[in-house]
Amino acid sequence: MTAMIQETDAVVIGAGPVGLFQVFQLGLQGLSAHIIDALPYAGGQCVELYGDKPIYDIPGVPVCTGRELAALLQQQIVPFQPQWHLNTQVAALQPQADTGRFHVTTAQGTTLSARAVFIAAGVGAFVPKALKLEGIDRFVGAQLHYTRLPATASLKDQRLVVHGGDDAAVACAVEAATAGQAASVTLLYRRDVFNATPEALAQLQALRNVGRIQVVVGQPTGMDCAGERLNALHITTPEDTTVPLPLDVLVVALGVSPRLGPIADWGLAMERKQLVVDTATFVTSVPGIYAVGDINTYPGKRKLIVCGFHEATLAAFAAAEALSGKPVALQYTTSSTRLHQLLRVGSAGTVNG
Amino acid sequence: MTAMIQETDAVVIGAGPVGLFQVFQLGLQGLSAHIIDALPYAGGQCVELYGDKPIYDIPGVPVCTGRELAALLQQQIVPFQPQWHLNTQVAALQPQADTGRFHVTTAQGTTLSARAVFIAAGVGAFVPKALKLEGIDRFVGAQLHYTRLPATASLKDQRLVVHGGDDAAVACAVEAATAGQAASVTLLYRRDVFNATPEALAQLQALRNVGRIQVVVGQPTGMDCAGERLNALHITTPEDTTVPLPLDVLVVALGVSPRLGPIADWGLAMERKQLVVDTATFVTSVPGIYAVGDINTYPGKRKLIVCGFHEATLAAFAAAEALSGKPVALQYTTSSTRLHQLLRVGSAGTVNG
Repeated sequence: MTAMIQETDAVVIGAGPVGLFQVFQLGLQGLSAHIIDALPYAGGQCVELYGDKPIYDIPGVPVCTGRELAALLQQQIVPFQPQWHLNTQVAALQPQADTGRFHVTTAQGTTLSARAVFIAAGVGAFVPKALKLEGIDRFVGAQLHYTRLPATASLKDQRLVVHGGDDAAVACAVEAATAGQAASVTLLYRRDVFNATPEALAQLQALRNVGRIQVVVGQPTGMDCAGERLNALHITTPEDTTVPLPLDVLVVALGVSPRLGPIADWGLAMERKQLVVDTATFVTSVPGIYAVGDINTYPGKRKLIVCGFHEATLAAFAAAEALSGKPVALQYTTSSTRLHQLLRVGSAGTVNG
Repeated sequence: MTAMIQETDAVVIGAGPVGLFQVFQLGLQGLSAHIIDALPYAGGQCVELYGDKPIYDIPGVPVCTGRELAALLQQQIVPFQPQWHLNTQVAALQPQADTGRFHVTTAQGTTLSARAVFIAAGVGAFVPKALKLEGIDRFVGAQLHYTRLPATASLKDQRLVVHGGDDAAVACAVEAATAGQAASVTLLYRRDVFNATPEALAQLQALRNVGRIQVVVGQPTGMDCAGERLNALHITTPEDTTVPLPLDVLVVALGVSPRLGPIADWGLAMERKQLVVDTATFVTSVPGIYAVGDINTYPGKRKLIVCGFHEATLAAFAAAEALSGKPVALQYTTSSTRLHQLLRVGSAGTVNG
């Protein structure tokens, strides 16, 4: 039995502002797109790193937050109905010699077959910061979970340890302690200062006051295992002693960090972890694979959103020409009937249906 | 006596969207700018050709008219207080060997001395379409005026002929006839159909009904002069006869058309009437002179506003590096204290006094 393969004109890897605008420009060329991002929402760094901070240098947008910019771009691509793959990492990219297509396989096992691939992966996929303990990876998905507990997990009579100090960690501990099924709930962090909303901090304090959440201050430096079972972490305290912290379930919520991931293994020409592109087409060293935004490099490159928008525009033209085998004439959204049809707007400029 | 020369970091030639954003990016580099345009308002083609038409492909702006885009960009550059020179054409650009500066001289005789020049002239200066009659140029500013009558002109006992068929022509004739000083007011156009607002057309009809505006249908094909005086136009009618149209004052309001003007004479490398630039810096063949937007050409060039925004961005970085003689590090408007000072915003993102 073969897994189902979804066909598409284009796959865009990365749903930051440049990836979103790539979908828009592909749409204007009549090319359909799937868009993939490791985060559970669109916007990339824009939302993850400065969601509520003002941005002043988007032309025509005197000021907006990262979240607002992402929302505007999502609104702009609605007519082109991209297929979304959020919470999804790309595992492999394989050119198909027989068809000239590319197979993009996700970590979840989905395979997309695309005529062109656009890497708009910024500084890489934002993935949960890993707990760096030799050998602990084998418990992921069993006793160890990143960021949050899976919806299906039962904590009945289980000793839960939550490792982290921000919103996600505090919320996880509070929720488990409030539910009341766990045998114990422990919040483990390098110091007894937590970064969460005042409401969450008040809930945490109330649950600590009645003994339903314990806080352990220290860093995990080792573990006790027995076969396929994780029994305890070794915690090194600020006083430099090491104590065991027995557990049944461990949630690690240390935030996210960018990871270039498998892109470095795809055989594309790179310079200092960036994909080398041609400035006329933004194609990488492999025809059919384009790179736009912070992930690429070329003479004069500046890692600015406004530059990524241009790159995505020329990449879409280049792909349209490569795929059709003929020159693509410039059309203007103010006047082109074809572009109005693609944008689903009437000639008077009103949005249809 | 030497005419006063105004010093500035940069002169931007062209106040279309790309010229406006050039001012913004120069401002972020701490560079002051004068901006020059032949039109009496900012916005260039955006306002002149599609002021009220919707544009859909500005990233982060799902839809706006040309006029709205120009207004947003003007709002965005307010913190940088550019010096405006509207209704102004550039006559000459002369590198100064001794200082490394550039003298930009306007048709009005103003000279600006700049450390760098940014040509964002689009398809050229939008200038009034000329009346093509051999030898008539010598009456410009005396008996012949383009687009409108000068505020200082007196029509007392004068025979006015207005040549044209659109808003400006109709408005000029209506205004003169209403004022009632002229001996006669004649509207001359190739057909008896005028393109103006319903209100203006109603006024025109009312004044025609009472004989205060005459309409002559035909094309000017010659003239009667006596020395330094223009006495009449020769009008060739649709019936192919030619009749004289006596006049004292002639207003030609045939709309505007782009004219590349003197740019072609500045010794800059060109290809098909476009300035050749380097895609890392958008510098022309002359160091210190940059070209951005529709006026430039490079491999992959597409005449799109979004591309011009990128070009203006890299040109500003390149100029800042060339002028300071050292690398300029990238800073982000979300986080840079220096950029917040230049933008006159507080660290909380609010605009200061």
